Amino acid sequence: MRTGVWLVGARGSVATTSIVGALALRAGLTRPTGCVTELPAVGGPALPTFSDLVFGGHDVVATPLAKRAETLAAAGVLPARLVAALPEELAAVDQELRPAPTDGSQADRAAAIVRDLTGFRDRHGLARVVVVNVSATEAAPEPHPAHADPAALSAALTGPDEVLPPSSLYAYAAVTAGCPYVDFTPSTGLRLPALSALAEQHRVPYAGHDGKTGETLLKSVLAPMFAMRNLHVRSWSGTNLLGGGDGATLADPAANAAKVRSKQRVLGETLGYLPQGDTRIDYVEELGDFKTAWDLITFAGFLGTGMRLEFTWHGCDSALAAPLVLDLARLAAAAHAAGRSGPLTELAFFFKDPLGEGTHSLADQWTRLCEFAHRLHTGGTDDPRG
Amino acid sequence: MRTGVWLVGARGSVATTSIVGALALRAGLTRPTGCVTELPAVGGPALPTFSDLVFGGHDVVATPLAKRAETLAAAGVLPARLVAALPEELAAVDQELRPAPTDGSQADRAAAIVRDLTGFRDRHGLARVVVVNVSATEAAPEPHPAHADPAALSAALTGPDEVLPPSSLYAYAAVTAGCPYVDFTPSTGLRLPALSALAEQHRVPYAGHDGKTGETLLKSVLAPMFAMRNLHVRSWSGTNLLGGGDGATLADPAANAAKVRSKQRVLGETLGYLPQGDTRIDYVEELGDFKTAWDLITFAGFLGTGMRLEFTWHGCDSALAAPLVLDLARLAAAAHAAGRSGPLTELAFFFKDPLGEGTHSLADQWTRLCEFAHRLHTGGTDDPRG
Amino acid sequence: MRTGVWLVGARGSVATTSIVGALALRAGLTRPTGCVTELPAVGGPALPTFSDLVFGGHDVVATPLAKRAETLAAAGVLPARLVAALPEELAAVDQELRPAPTDGSQADRAAAIVRDLTGFRDRHGLARVVVVNVSATEAAPEPHPAHADPAALSAALTGPDEVLPPSSLYAYAAVTAGCPYVDFTPSTGLRLPALSALAEQHRVPYAGHDGKTGETLLKSVLAPMFAMRNLHVRSWSGTNLLGGGDGATLADPAANAAKVRSKQRVLGETLGYLPQGDTRIDYVEELGDFKTAWDLITFAGFLGTGMRLEFTWHGCDSALAAPLVLDLARLAAAAHAAGRSGPLTELAFFFKDPLGEGTHSLADQWTRLCEFAHRLHTGGTDDPRG
Amino acid sequence: MRTGVWLVGARGSVATTSIVGALALRAGLTRPTGCVTELPAVGGPALPTFSDLVFGGHDVVATPLAKRAETLAAAGVLPARLVAALPEELAAVDQELRPAPTDGSQADRAAAIVRDLTGFRDRHGLARVVVVNVSATEAAPEPHPAHADPAALSAALTGPDEVLPPSSLYAYAAVTAGCPYVDFTPSTGLRLPALSALAEQHRVPYAGHDGKTGETLLKSVLAPMFAMRNLHVRSWSGTNLLGGGDGATLADPAANAAKVRSKQRVLGETLGYLPQGDTRIDYVEELGDFKTAWDLITFAGFLGTGMRLEFTWHGCDSALAAPLVLDLARLAAAAHAAGRSGPLTELAFFFKDPLGEGTHSLADQWTRLCEFAHRLHTGGTDDPRG
Repeated sequence: MRTGVWLVGARGSVATTSIVGALALRAGLTRPTGCVTELPAVGGPALPTFSDLVFGGHDVVATPLAKRAETLAAAGVLPARLVAALPEELAAVDQELRPAPTDGSQADRAAAIVRDLTGFRDRHGLARVVVVNVSATEAAPEPHPAHADPAALSAALTGPDEVLPPSSLYAYAAVTAGCPYVDFTPSTGLRLPALSALAEQHRVPYAGHDGKTGETLLKSVLAPMFAMRNLHVRSWSGTNLLGGGDGATLADPAANAAKVRSKQRVLGETLGYLPQGDTRIDYVEELGDFKTAWDLITFAGFLGTGMRLEFTWHGCDSALAAPLVLDLARLAAAAHAAGRSGPLTELAFFFKDPLGEGTHSLADQWTRLCEFAHRLHTGGTDDPRG
Repeated sequence: MRTGVWLVGARGSVATTSIVGALALRAGLTRPTGCVTELPAVGGPALPTFSDLVFGGHDVVATPLAKRAETLAAAGVLPARLVAALPEELAAVDQELRPAPTDGSQADRAAAIVRDLTGFRDRHGLARVVVVNVSATEAAPEPHPAHADPAALSAALTGPDEVLPPSSLYAYAAVTAGCPYVDFTPSTGLRLPALSALAEQHRVPYAGHDGKTGETLLKSVLAPMFAMRNLHVRSWSGTNLLGGGDGATLADPAANAAKVRSKQRVLGETLGYLPQGDTRIDYVEELGDFKTAWDLITFAGFLGTGMRLEFTWHGCDSALAAPLVLDLARLAAAAHAAGRSGPLTELAFFFKDPLGEGTHSLADQWTRLCEFAHRLHTGGTDDPRG
Repeated sequence: MRTGVWLVGARGSVATTSIVGALALRAGLTRPTGCVTELPAVGGPALPTFSDLVFGGHDVVATPLAKRAETLAAAGVLPARLVAALPEELAAVDQELRPAPTDGSQADRAAAIVRDLTGFRDRHGLARVVVVNVSATEAAPEPHPAHADPAALSAALTGPDEVLPPSSLYAYAAVTAGCPYVDFTPSTGLRLPALSALAEQHRVPYAGHDGKTGETLLKSVLAPMFAMRNLHVRSWSGTNLLGGGDGATLADPAANAAKVRSKQRVLGETLGYLPQGDTRIDYVEELGDFKTAWDLITFAGFLGTGMRLEFTWHGCDSALAAPLVLDLARLAAAAHAAGRSGPLTELAFFFKDPLGEGTHSLADQWTRLCEFAHRLHTGGTDDPRG
Repeated sequence: MRTGVWLVGARGSVATTSIVGALALRAGLTRPTGCVTELPAVGGPALPTFSDLVFGGHDVVATPLAKRAETLAAAGVLPARLVAALPEELAAVDQELRPAPTDGSQADRAAAIVRDLTGFRDRHGLARVVVVNVSATEAAPEPHPAHADPAALSAALTGPDEVLPPSSLYAYAAVTAGCPYVDFTPSTGLRLPALSALAEQHRVPYAGHDGKTGETLLKSVLAPMFAMRNLHVRSWSGTNLLGGGDGATLADPAANAAKVRSKQRVLGETLGYLPQGDTRIDYVEELGDFKTAWDLITFAGFLGTGMRLEFTWHGCDSALAAPLVLDLARLAAAAHAAGRSGPLTELAFFFKDPLGEGTHSLADQWTRLCEFAHRLHTGGTDDPRG
């Protein structure tokens, strides 16, 4: 079951780490640390193996993957020995990366993307291609009437306006080409009525939003802990310091706002009330891909006695995100193979701002994920909506 | 359903806070923050209300409760206004506290404890009395042949030897008197074959060990997080700084060892391997009841990239423990009323070193607790071995 | 040498803590912890004693001091026993507090302030009155041509415009009344050419700005440490979370900007370059007077090896500031008595944003302070410009 | 002024980093970050340049330096590009490294060391050779009567006993060979009456003990800060987690005790009282050369209000120590050239447990260092004992 993984932002840090990692796993050069789909409770026969995965993608820059990988190795994101061991494999992937289309109307560009996707699928004889958006976070788009309806949308795209933000144009093209779509960023992606309707029409599944890799991962286990113990959280303040490409993007207040909003959902929905305090994201170039998050939580125990928890998370964003990208590609492919379409709400485990209504507790999300994987592996119908 | 709560160590910080809190709740002077049994998923008709609880206990010291409470208020453990509002209620409880028996053989002392328990039950017309050990942590006891068998034990107690450590002598007396027994400390308590056999004979349920109030509580949500994400924990080092009575006890290396062992179970059993690093407990008198725990966790992500998590927990031990003492008394009483006997493994949620074999994941323990409570409230048979 | 201390913002947290503390010290109820002028290297015969100090002040609110003190005691800022022990003393100070003048032109208001100051001095037979601004931080004022020149200023004040921000109007009145002036806030105060000229004319000394009580205090020892060790600071990011009155004021972006600017001077001037990273101030109401500052410093050692320092400062702003207010009042009074006028640059030790050009190293500032105090006590001429 | 630097423990992490760094500085491949002697206030004509330094040394292992350097590069302690650029230079230093003598009496071994030192000096035409001990921390030695007197010592060394610990045997040989001696470890070194008398006889200067590279460096600026502000430190607890060779050595309780004692001096001597709390050193192999120190300081401000400071230091021990080794070699050489002998107390800036009586304040130590360097550069007589 050879499966394509088409990365939007294919030369970025997350994509490069995902590709190097998958190639290294295929070559037996490393262990699948961080890959959830390699745990006994999630893995199984329905998933394509790492060797089944074939990589392609779009990017606006043209730096060779090997050079990007060397830069990441110098920054401590991945081991230099892996980059040195995989020159031909990386060059082969380079052959499958395309410049992001820039000419013509948005309809023209969508058509170019579809051609790239179908060409990739045909060229490699792939059972399917999963499109994963790992490009930079966008600002929230302007509302547009064509967002409401597939037909209106198709018509509007042929005009001169930028009707869709890039993440949504890729989602549109993916769906049109019959490809499952995963949004690993907080960008709009498929979250427009016209696009989700289109996904149902084309019978493709999709997942998102915003990979849960650091501070929010911790929130999704710590907030339930306070709730289960009936401890009252008075304030929860977070500071995120990060450099790297994502950091620079988030220095833009509009993109920052999208990310912060995505990060805040977990508290209100888990605790049932919103504690005081804000989440900040600040760009500190010198930190590179290593993000430091510091959170201060003040809470009341029995008889109102005040207490505090502080944590500092010093994580490498790309190294945390990359295995999840592989996990999501494998799971979305298996879901598509099993005939699932529409939102894959069972994948909430992976996201800060998940599709659907479920709890934000990581443990509950884990249970749902395991059940989902079990159904995939045992061939049961797995659409919770019947 | 008036229910007795008999506290071993009744004038200690945890007991005093439990008593003040229960009286304040009964008087409507505070909210049940920190009480798990007041959450919708756990509470219900099978539990005695706070007003149903009647307090008694043993202690080796004789300081009036009101004075102990004032000391705790001055240290910020509980609000002075509550102590000031409850002078008569506290004096009434003082009437039910007895000096720990010290005369005669261990059999004589056990008999004295039984007399105190049955006298308390009769005097107040109580449906039952739950004995909760909140006294200082003991060192591990010397093995003794009589620990293996109830009959041998009864015989040995009449001799001059200290056959049982105090926590186990109280457990023996509780069981003999038909009282459910909860061990909130890491001491031996009922964990001797002779005593667990006796508990089955007398049809009493019991729970333990070592209330999970701080660093281990965090471990029981963080360790599963690393496991669910397939992140490899390389080292987990913990430092606990605490003053107060418990801190002084733990300055004794033998007691410290018992506590540290209790704290370490969660990592090995959750991760499936034991990371490098130790847990330390150091006594710093000036910190009083406020404990500071600092943990450093180093872990590997994808491709072996090293990352770190640090946390500092600044909690008030007594204010964290007291509501759990009330929870456990209520749940053990309801279990007894429902005919349960033997180890209440479903209460693992509350303990660092729980009875039985289940997972240490707080979320899993929560699920078991909710199911247990549901069975209690709906009248189902709830013995998992039944 | 009875000396008046006139507090602008006399019912605020810092002022109330200063007053309660001075009264408690006078009554022998506490020790002078935090008072720099009680150290052997700084104290001496030139300073008024705590018993010499007489308090008065202005405020826009009218809450009795005892009530303010009780609120602070409930929040853990000062001990309730001191408030309970000093009811008459606090009431006596209340008699000397005046509402901030609000009627008429700024000239009218300045005249009213002068009347209050001279009335206070005469009524108590004071050798002098030191005016200390401990009111809320202001936004930076609009430039005004009258700021350049004393005569133009006096003329402009009679008009309808708000020519001076409040801190500067108090400074104007203080100087006019012949009173030394200390600005403990980052507000403008005497930092206008017209006002500093006026201070020289009236032969009054002044000191400021912005009491150094927390994060910046640490910066003033840590930044020199990196410099002395030739370690290269790559980034220095700070987050300040605070509630209380000052926190609410700083939620106003303009006031926040003034404060942040004041906090940043120390790094650039000590290191000789400005590392990456920003200082943030966020308002979290529930933290009250207890401020938490978290700083992350990344630095390079030998051969560029990257390292990190993090600190968390959990301080009570009022309890840190109050003893310094007393120190500054004592030192400014002694300087005035010794005939000093103009900026007291030797008091840089106390300030985030000190007057004059000296180093920000706390150790160097300490040396200057000790020399200054020594000259005061030995009667030498102490004006470095003299 | 070609100057030898003879490293005891020459293939250890600190020595290897020192050598690679000095070679890289000589080749213009890096900047002297972390080198105090390159700061304008300390550097000057009296010091040998980096190009003047010639390296030799003893070690008990024989791993080639280049291999040791590669291991350190893989661990992130130094940049791989520097190791790759200096293969011949490292091989040349390898030629000057000798196995630690192991045969015969201690007198025989001392004579062998002296031969190695003088051979090195003659072979390279060196003005002098500074011996620097950077080998593993020893346990405190057993007292021996011969420690009191040079003549008795010389006699005892010819016998079969291990009269001196290794650090002291090297010190004995260095002094005998007329070489200045620096002890960068907490081991005994020259701190025996017989040896310091011998150093005076041979007119050689010496410095020590225990390079101040992390937690204690911070203590030496933070403790004075609390003292200068008259804040009362209630407790100061420290946890040091470290791997690497030094960590393994310190897992030995005896060596650990020596180190902890060395770390504690600064608090008591700076504050004038000893706060509660201990300093711990724990070995965590996986941390390698990167040491994490966490300290919790609780202190009282005005009116006894309790506050807290926490810091986490994540430093690379070898990268912090190596530039100081070069600094000390340069300064000791210049002192010797200037005719100084005996303890170089002016170098307290560099040490946790400095020789002599001075203050532990880093700022004061800095002032003394700058004055010392100034005297060296201007040719003044610099022996404070005149």
